[in-house]
Amino acid sequence: MALRARVLYDFTSENPGEVSVKENEVLTLHSEKDIEGWLEGTNSKGQRGLFPASYVEILRSDPTPSPSSSSSNNNTPAVGSIPFPPPVTQQPPPQHQQQLYQQTSPGSDEDWDDDWDDSSTVADEPVGGRYNDFEGNGHFRLSTSGTSRGNAQQAKSSATVSRNLNRFSTFVKSGGEAFVLGEASGFVKDGDKLCVVMGQCGPEWQENPYPFTCGIDDPTKQTKFKGMKSYMSYKLTPTHTQNQVNRRYKHFDWLYTRLVEKFPVISVPHIPEKQATGRFEEDFISKRRKGLIWWMNHMTSHPVLARCDVFQHFLTCSSTDEKAWKQGKRKAEKDEMVGANFFLTISTPPAPLDFQEVESKIDGFKTFTKRMDDSTLQLNATANEFARKQIGGFKKEYQKMGMSFKVLSQAFEMDQQSYSTGLNQAISFTGDAYESIGEYFAEQPSKDLDPIMDLLALYQGHLTNYPDIIHVQKGALTKVKESQKHVEEGKMDGAQAEGINNRCNIISCATLAEIQHFHTIRVRDFKMQMQHYLQQQIGFFQKITGKLEEALQKYDDA
Amino acid sequence: MALRARVLYDFTSENPGEVSVKENEVLTLHSEKDIEGWLEGTNSKGQRGLFPASYVEILRSDPTPSPSSSSSNNNTPAVGSIPFPPPVTQQPPPQHQQQLYQQTSPGSDEDWDDDWDDSSTVADEPVGGRYNDFEGNGHFRLSTSGTSRGNAQQAKSSATVSRNLNRFSTFVKSGGEAFVLGEASGFVKDGDKLCVVMGQCGPEWQENPYPFTCGIDDPTKQTKFKGMKSYMSYKLTPTHTQNQVNRRYKHFDWLYTRLVEKFPVISVPHIPEKQATGRFEEDFISKRRKGLIWWMNHMTSHPVLARCDVFQHFLTCSSTDEKAWKQGKRKAEKDEMVGANFFLTISTPPAPLDFQEVESKIDGFKTFTKRMDDSTLQLNATANEFARKQIGGFKKEYQKMGMSFKVLSQAFEMDQQSYSTGLNQAISFTGDAYESIGEYFAEQPSKDLDPIMDLLALYQGHLTNYPDIIHVQKGALTKVKESQKHVEEGKMDGAQAEGINNRCNIISCATLAEIQHFHTIRVRDFKMQMQHYLQQQIGFFQKITGKLEEALQKYDDA
Repeated sequence: MALRARVLYDFTSENPGEVSVKENEVLTLHSEKDIEGWLEGTNSKGQRGLFPASYVEILRSDPTPSPSSSSSNNNTPAVGSIPFPPPVTQQPPPQHQQQLYQQTSPGSDEDWDDDWDDSSTVADEPVGGRYNDFEGNGHFRLSTSGTSRGNAQQAKSSATVSRNLNRFSTFVKSGGEAFVLGEASGFVKDGDKLCVVMGQCGPEWQENPYPFTCGIDDPTKQTKFKGMKSYMSYKLTPTHTQNQVNRRYKHFDWLYTRLVEKFPVISVPHIPEKQATGRFEEDFISKRRKGLIWWMNHMTSHPVLARCDVFQHFLTCSSTDEKAWKQGKRKAEKDEMVGANFFLTISTPPAPLDFQEVESKIDGFKTFTKRMDDSTLQLNATANEFARKQIGGFKKEYQKMGMSFKVLSQAFEMDQQSYSTGLNQAISFTGDAYESIGEYFAEQPSKDLDPIMDLLALYQGHLTNYPDIIHVQKGALTKVKESQKHVEEGKMDGAQAEGINNRCNIISCATLAEIQHFHTIRVRDFKMQMQHYLQQQIGFFQKITGKLEEALQKYDDA
Repeated sequence: MALRARVLYDFTSENPGEVSVKENEVLTLHSEKDIEGWLEGTNSKGQRGLFPASYVEILRSDPTPSPSSSSSNNNTPAVGSIPFPPPVTQQPPPQHQQQLYQQTSPGSDEDWDDDWDDSSTVADEPVGGRYNDFEGNGHFRLSTSGTSRGNAQQAKSSATVSRNLNRFSTFVKSGGEAFVLGEASGFVKDGDKLCVVMGQCGPEWQENPYPFTCGIDDPTKQTKFKGMKSYMSYKLTPTHTQNQVNRRYKHFDWLYTRLVEKFPVISVPHIPEKQATGRFEEDFISKRRKGLIWWMNHMTSHPVLARCDVFQHFLTCSSTDEKAWKQGKRKAEKDEMVGANFFLTISTPPAPLDFQEVESKIDGFKTFTKRMDDSTLQLNATANEFARKQIGGFKKEYQKMGMSFKVLSQAFEMDQQSYSTGLNQAISFTGDAYESIGEYFAEQPSKDLDPIMDLLALYQGHLTNYPDIIHVQKGALTKVKESQKHVEEGKMDGAQAEGINNRCNIISCATLAEIQHFHTIRVRDFKMQMQHYLQQQIGFFQKITGKLEEALQKYDDA
């Protein structure tokens, strides 16, 4: 009998090979097995193609387990065991983007030198504007060339606790589910070990015993192929080696992809947006450099990210030793300790966490991030508008005053009275002073508001990371609850449940440590940036005052 | 045979009794004699009414002197002997307003107490906006009750040099023409004598040997008729008597009318505008008081105005001695030394002026006033817009920043992290600081831009006076040129021409002294006001800096 599925949410095909399906439509499936989250089937119109597995529920002909029963303990997909929000648009849910980390497959060394910096078109630009880099490489496409490691791990699953069939779920994609269910395995080297320790405010990452920072100098324009192609090269100087290395934006991008793939519950700072046109314009170069400096600061400040091999390779491998670079690159791309296996590297404080307390903390943090997101968006919009006004209207008003004073002094110069020369010159100087003040207003935002907005952009990137991080922790907690129920019902033995419990503890420790780190750098960064902003503002108003005092003095002899 | 006139410029009737006439239309006149500048006649449509005498030329039936001949030495009107600009609009020329000074006839003491302050309606408000007080009492209307003294003087004329038939000419109205032609006569008391002395920059008014100033306190609201009527009373305290007197706006208005009537080539500062509605509103009271303070400053600074009887009466007569007040009032209104006779009171430096030099100085001043008028208008418009922006947009932008900081601090308060309390409070304080700075911006214009605009308004008043003053001097100079021609042609004896020369010298000395005074107070006022403006601006930016420094300190413990 044909395998059928009922459509839960509308899906509109966007690419060749996909098929559009409507809610409640019944489809004929060609196979129950999804391919990287996609199922193949024929819709009621007879159109054949792919659609997201999570958008449908499989209808079985044998009536034994009702599809709505989530307590089934066989391998039947338990839709809803992890809450999955219905999509607000007809697009696949946002988590879908994450798939790209895995899709960015370890490229051959040959295509590494593809100069996308030059061949990139506007279509390559980030779609969503601020920090939506994921979408930069185009829509997710089905790939037949091997499954990613994350899924490969999950494929081994044979646990009693039901697995989530939603392949778009971050919990699944991140490897969080596989790890909780005890499916992750790998050899953890001593150097890979990560400690979560108990701090004053709860779990936190063990501090980096060898802290360092890394300077980024003004980039220089490099050319290759006899000047046919050109790109910007950034000079990085890490304090722990003091050796300068040259890196291009695409290297940052490659590193970022590796990091996101490797660390499921760590908020990897977003790298500044790509920009295809005007890449060599001074403003853009300066803006990107500032963005990279912020990014680097968050990288070196993070106890886990700062120490990881791929980042160290990026920072320390000589720019001229191409062989060493390619070796490190290949090693990073073949890293086994990614996704589910990452959690294996974490050691936790001896006392397990109280999950109820964890849940409450996570919920509080969720509320916090929502509020912080709203308020940073508002501050960003206000600062942007304020900068625009200062560059435009404020400058104009002060310069119009300046011009009017100048015109008055010019009229006064026609008075044929020698004793008024001093006054005329003083008024003329005042006019110049107001024109200068107009310029000061126009120049100021780049000194105080722009850094505020750079900071906000970085944090808005972090804030978009946290829903996924929280999702992984919540998924783990749900597994614990399910396992407890199963134990009560005698469907699972205590040891297995204990294992799930322990592994959820590891995920929870890592998540709380990451949240703690977020708060620490947030308080540090906002304090520093607010101080910087106020110092700049004070300097600005003092500069105006100085200019006006200079003008006032001119009247002494007038 | 009917007396006829050809229309030189279009005139559109605006009031009952007037008749519209078109250029080149031939009218039938009812009488050759004009009544205060108006002729009565019938137009080609058969409509009868009044029209300005200066808009027509009288056509005579006897062909002897051609109307276009300006060298005629009989009493035929020599149209064009004083250049008279054609009206740019169809309204009577602006000088027409001046006629009102004479029309404001010495009123009976009874109507003095008519409380126009209360019975005034919006129709009583100045028409033209800034400082066009003349029109406040309505359009010029023909009055049959006696001719004014100025015209009475001119009626005696029988000089050889032709008289200007343009009754709207300031030269005629001011009495300048009558004086130059030797028609003024009167007994000059010692106390009335005014000296023009030769200073470094040319003729100037002899300084007031008893300089004084006069304070104007906040006005108080007074009532009479058992509270049925109310008015504002200003407390004046002149420094030379130290006796406080109470004066109402209408007293200022009465004084102003007397001064304009009396002094033909002195720029009497305009009193602040009337305002019928909202007279008791704080803003208006404060604005008018400031205007009166400026006005008083210019009155007491003027060597001639400060000392004149009517002003002294106004400043020193006890507010409670009604009899003394009325006596002084009647005396001022019956003053003989007004208009043409005013020039009799002037004594000049021994050496007569070089009229060519005088003409060049006057022309230079004319150019100067035009430029100054343009530039003060521009500065006023800019300052007004700048004030509006600070009260509106600038305040809003700073307060929006403040609000966004507050919202951010509120979001941060939800972070459950005790160590961030200091930061949250500091950001909250910064928010408050920016809201305060927004207020500072909104409050500032009343402290610096408003005084600038008050000053500009006062000077714009002076600048509208000068075309008439210059016109009188130019008229006198033209008479000198005419007389020289007549002497050359043997139509006038040397002594008569010498008299005209001497009297033109007196007018020129007075005019140049007045111009010199204008420059002196202008340089003084603008220097003082620019200093005040800059001091206020410096204080303003220092206040902002102080607020920001206070905010910055909050981060020290954060």
